[in-house]
Amino acid sequence: MQHNLQNTISLLTRTPATLNTLLRDLPEAWTFRNEGQNTWSAFDVVGHLIHGERTDWMPRVKVVLQFGETRAFEPFDRQGHAREIHGKSLAQLLDEFARLRSENLAELRALHLRPEDLERRGRHPSLGVVSLSELLATWAAHDLTHLHQISRVMAHQYREAVGPWSAYLGVLHCTGHSSS
Amino acid sequence: MQHNLQNTISLLTRTPATLNTLLRDLPEAWTFRNEGQNTWSAFDVVGHLIHGERTDWMPRVKVVLQFGETRAFEPFDRQGHAREIHGKSLAQLLDEFARLRSENLAELRALHLRPEDLERRGRHPSLGVVSLSELLATWAAHDLTHLHQISRVMAHQYREAVGPWSAYLGVLHCTGHSSS
Repeated sequence: MQHNLQNTISLLTRTPATLNTLLRDLPEAWTFRNEGQNTWSAFDVVGHLIHGERTDWMPRVKVVLQFGETRAFEPFDRQGHAREIHGKSLAQLLDEFARLRSENLAELRALHLRPEDLERRGRHPSLGVVSLSELLATWAAHDLTHLHQISRVMAHQYREAVGPWSAYLGVLHCTGHSSS
Repeated sequence: MQHNLQNTISLLTRTPATLNTLLRDLPEAWTFRNEGQNTWSAFDVVGHLIHGERTDWMPRVKVVLQFGETRAFEPFDRQGHAREIHGKSLAQLLDEFARLRSENLAELRALHLRPEDLERRGRHPSLGVVSLSELLATWAAHDLTHLHQISRVMAHQYREAVGPWSAYLGVLHCTGHSSS
C-alpha cells in the first residue's frame, strides 16, 4: 500500500504497549539473552528504540522541514543504545520508550502535515535523497523489524529445546537481520 | 537454554494480550492484508493460533500422557483456521484466542507436571518420537514464529513506502517462513 500517515501513527502508537505486554516481568532467560556474540537481546532492542526516539525520527523530520535536501541527517549511531541501557532495568526502559514515543507522536500530530508536506525531500547521509513520506513509513517499519527481531531472539533461546520441531519453525530459519 | 516449564508458561500467558495490544482496532490495511497469493494476513494467523489451541497443543499433551509412543498424534490441519475465521471479526478472534489459551493453561497447570513427566515420549506423525518437553517448548516457540510472521506480513505492506530504507530493514529480507 501507499504510505498513509494515519496508518503509520496507528502503528507507532501501539508499539510501546505491545512490547510492554510481551516483555514486562517476563523471566530474564527470555529478555536478557541474545543470539551470540555482538548480537542484541530484547533488552538491548528496547534501548535501541529509545535511542531512535531521541536522535533519529523526529529530529530528522525537523531537518527535512527546515533544511530540505541542503543538510544531510546526522548519521544514526547503532551503538548509541549503550548509554540508554546502562544501569537501567527493563521496566525502566519500557517506561522511557513509552514516554518518548508519546511525546514524539504529539509533536508529529502538532505539525498537521498535509499531503504535499509528505512529498518534501531530505538527504540521508548514505541513501541520498529521501522523502518525508519515506522517513515516516520507515519509522513504522522499523518498529516492525525490531518486533520481528525480538521474536527471533527469544525463539533462539529454545532452538535446542524444541527438538525436531525446529525444522517446522520458520523463526529459527530467519535470515532477515537488520542492519539499522 | 534448556526447556523450563515456568518460562514456557510465562510466555504462553502473554501472547494473547500481546496480539490484542498490537492488533485490536488497528486499521485493516495492516491486519487484513497478506504477502500475496496463498499467504496469511495477521487475521489469518490469529485464526491459526485458535485452531492450534483447539486441536494441537493440549490434545497432544494428553495423548503423550495417556498413550506414550503407542499412538501417533493426529496430523495438524494447516488449513483448519478457515473454519475458525469464517464470518468472524478480528476482535472476536482475539477474544476467542485469549479464552482458549487461558483454559488450556489452566488445564496444563492442573496436570502438575514433574520433571520426569517432561521426559515422557510421544509419537509425531512425521517427526517420529518426541518428548513432552519438546512439545511444550514448541508451543511457546510457535507463538514466537507467528509473532515473527505477523511483524513481517505487516512490514510487507510498507515495502514500497519506505523507499531506499528497504535495504536496511531486515524484516523485508526475511526468509524464515514457517511450514507449520
